Amino acid sequence: MNNQETICAVSTAQGGAIGIVRVSGSDSITICGKLFRSPHGEKQLADYPFRHAIYGTLISPDENDEIIDEVVVLKYKGPHSYTGEDSVEIMCHGSTYILEKVMSLLITEGCRLARPGEYTQRAFLNGKMDLSQAEAVADLISSSTAATHRLAMSQMRGGFSRELRQLRDKLLKLTSLMELELDFSEEDLEFADRQELKNLSKEIESTLSHLISSFKVGNALKNGVPVAIIGETNVGKSTLLNQLLHEDRAIVSEIHGTTRDTIEDTINIEGTLFRFIDTAGIRDTKDTIEAIGIDRTFQKTDKAEIVLWVTDATELGQSFERTYKRIIPHIGEKTLILVVNKCDLIDDTELYTELSNLYDHTGINPDETLLISAKTGKNIGALESKLLDYTNNVMRNEGDVIVTNLRHVEALKSALDALRSSTRAMDEGLSTDLVAEDLRMCVSALGEIVGEVTTDEVLGNIFKHFCVGK
Amino acid sequence: MNNQETICAVSTAQGGAIGIVRVSGSDSITICGKLFRSPHGEKQLADYPFRHAIYGTLISPDENDEIIDEVVVLKYKGPHSYTGEDSVEIMCHGSTYILEKVMSLLITEGCRLARPGEYTQRAFLNGKMDLSQAEAVADLISSSTAATHRLAMSQMRGGFSRELRQLRDKLLKLTSLMELELDFSEEDLEFADRQELKNLSKEIESTLSHLISSFKVGNALKNGVPVAIIGETNVGKSTLLNQLLHEDRAIVSEIHGTTRDTIEDTINIEGTLFRFIDTAGIRDTKDTIEAIGIDRTFQKTDKAEIVLWVTDATELGQSFERTYKRIIPHIGEKTLILVVNKCDLIDDTELYTELSNLYDHTGINPDETLLISAKTGKNIGALESKLLDYTNNVMRNEGDVIVTNLRHVEALKSALDALRSSTRAMDEGLSTDLVAEDLRMCVSALGEIVGEVTTDEVLGNIFKHFCVGK
Repeated sequence: MNNQETICAVSTAQGGAIGIVRVSGSDSITICGKLFRSPHGEKQLADYPFRHAIYGTLISPDENDEIIDEVVVLKYKGPHSYTGEDSVEIMCHGSTYILEKVMSLLITEGCRLARPGEYTQRAFLNGKMDLSQAEAVADLISSSTAATHRLAMSQMRGGFSRELRQLRDKLLKLTSLMELELDFSEEDLEFADRQELKNLSKEIESTLSHLISSFKVGNALKNGVPVAIIGETNVGKSTLLNQLLHEDRAIVSEIHGTTRDTIEDTINIEGTLFRFIDTAGIRDTKDTIEAIGIDRTFQKTDKAEIVLWVTDATELGQSFERTYKRIIPHIGEKTLILVVNKCDLIDDTELYTELSNLYDHTGINPDETLLISAKTGKNIGALESKLLDYTNNVMRNEGDVIVTNLRHVEALKSALDALRSSTRAMDEGLSTDLVAEDLRMCVSALGEIVGEVTTDEVLGNIFKHFCVGK
Repeated sequence: MNNQETICAVSTAQGGAIGIVRVSGSDSITICGKLFRSPHGEKQLADYPFRHAIYGTLISPDENDEIIDEVVVLKYKGPHSYTGEDSVEIMCHGSTYILEKVMSLLITEGCRLARPGEYTQRAFLNGKMDLSQAEAVADLISSSTAATHRLAMSQMRGGFSRELRQLRDKLLKLTSLMELELDFSEEDLEFADRQELKNLSKEIESTLSHLISSFKVGNALKNGVPVAIIGETNVGKSTLLNQLLHEDRAIVSEIHGTTRDTIEDTINIEGTLFRFIDTAGIRDTKDTIEAIGIDRTFQKTDKAEIVLWVTDATELGQSFERTYKRIIPHIGEKTLILVVNKCDLIDDTELYTELSNLYDHTGINPDETLLISAKTGKNIGALESKLLDYTNNVMRNEGDVIVTNLRHVEALKSALDALRSSTRAMDEGLSTDLVAEDLRMCVSALGEIVGEVTTDEVLGNIFKHFCVGK
């Protein structure tokens, strides 16, 4: 890797007090040395120790050594650097003029502008991290909540890729032995222990299934846990949405059917991102647009993880009666919370009578019910806690190993398909070469995740979503 | 200064690949040590050498040491740091979540959020730089052109404050001797050599006058050299403005009097900022708004450094004749460029005849004239060169010593007034105590610039304009 071009980029955002320019590649110290002057001109950049904060000035050699800035420079000796190559980090004042000037001087002296994610790509190519760790770097930088940050950090520090790599190595060994058998097929030898292979397949299958199913959670945490707010018209769904978002996001009125299209917005509740979906109220209508809206309500309900079924406390029984046949089929295994709204408008005794009636005659139980007033904000905090309980529960069940990346889940699915196909082939007594081919495909799919099998196209797709300077 | 609170701030802008959190104060290493873990947990932050890039993780002590980020940490031992205090710089990933988390952990452990400019203020209070140098740091960060960057850099590296401090020290010594005379007034002693004082006063007066007059240039470079574009209606002033700005800034039409209010915009031409002011065309009008616009044209002309007087090549003589009596009184010592526009519409021979006529009968000479076509862009480059010639000339005349700061020029003016008053007092044979008082005021005003005489209010005013983190 040592004959790679030397690249440079501004690694900080525009506009701060301090800016960092990163240079990486075999010529980085020579190139930066031409622009660096020690305070009394007595030393060269090359003379200083590595990993030491070197104070000095950066000058423009073509303009009578005019001083561009006072800087602190750090040199790193490859492979002990982020990229694994010789690197230099220049910390200067964060003025746009200075940063542009430093970049143009570096380019004049022979650097090339780094592409998005090229530092991390080089770190991957130089074996400083595997591909799934490299991908986590971008996730880490873009994560805006504690939950997504935790997932990205766990993935960057090895996460499930370590475990996958071990399983893949074992499988690769058995597959190779099996392929060896093919070379001696006439002699009917069996190098690969079939029982061992079956046990390993089972272990891998279980791991893969678990990882694939974790994607639903991972994806929800990354893009916001989808929470559908459904119920009849005029029960206060939009008022509830506005309360949860702490802003006037949805139009609220006394008129039945005010919300006709679904409205979505996300908010971070104590470190977890929730995506609330306000829907059109369910009722029989002749208005075509409203009817389409109600269809969408059910589509959104199907895609949600949590359903807030909002009812009107002042007519709890009837409201429930009118809607439950249409709603219940869409709940499935989702978490349902029955939100009894407008509790400020009804006498407590009356409400509790209604409620105990409801509990007696339906499958609903008190744990799933919350008495709120979206208008006054009563019990909104309790509702938020209930939402957080849900995510804490699923996160606890999934453990640390949660897949958040679509590329990973696709590769995991391919690996699982190939593995199952190989197991079927063995069970059906098919020929060794067919089994081996399936196993090869599984090994290859697992390799894609950690980057042991990659094409330039795959790498290009991954790193183009990075920011420049990382 | 060692019992100052320990402060922290994010010193980079939001959104980059890398972020820097700065901690400064006597507890900075202890506080950061509580959050830092070495890769194998074998070492404490305090065990590492100073100014060394320390790799490790940042953890949250209250959340089971959950890893917040992988970081590189630099420790600085006061006074060998930017602020002059013990300091720590934490380089982490630039995610908003991480930066906010790191800040909140630091604050939990006992840091206080830094106020804008507080690092530089501490550097000043700890004697790492004088006040004019500290002010230059903010100018440096906000400078967007080569010219303003050069001025800020020169001021940050000492600039005129070194010279001023020397002169002030000499003046202070003589003033003290003079005040000593007051204690022995009955004995009529003369400790302060009057001739030496007069010579010094002359030297300081000359320096101050020069610095004060440089402010006009300094201010122009900082806010853009003001260039007024004036002339009759429909000669193409707005078209010229759009050409110079490389965008459709002003509305252009065939209708006389299209531009009624003045339009200003700045553009960076090869490192110098110019502020172009398009004005209402000069003509006799009964339209009240247009008449007000024409008044403004002359107000803007008065404030400009350069005047582009635009005329129509197809009726050069008449156009000149109609306007020169109104324009000439506003030129004064400004740089005038007669811009002959619409040269694409007239035969060359005809144009040159018109021009030589003009040169013969007016004070205008060929050096001050430019033949252009704002429509086709012809000779716009030559016009830009002429503008740059102007600034290069004035910068060459002023040398490196250019005052850009309003506070400085006010202090310089006070110092000069006091100095002149003391000279007059001496010339008129007034009593020593009156002379000494004037000199004291001069010494004090000079001290304000470099910060030897400051109040908390002055400091507050200066540093509140800084960004947080510097």
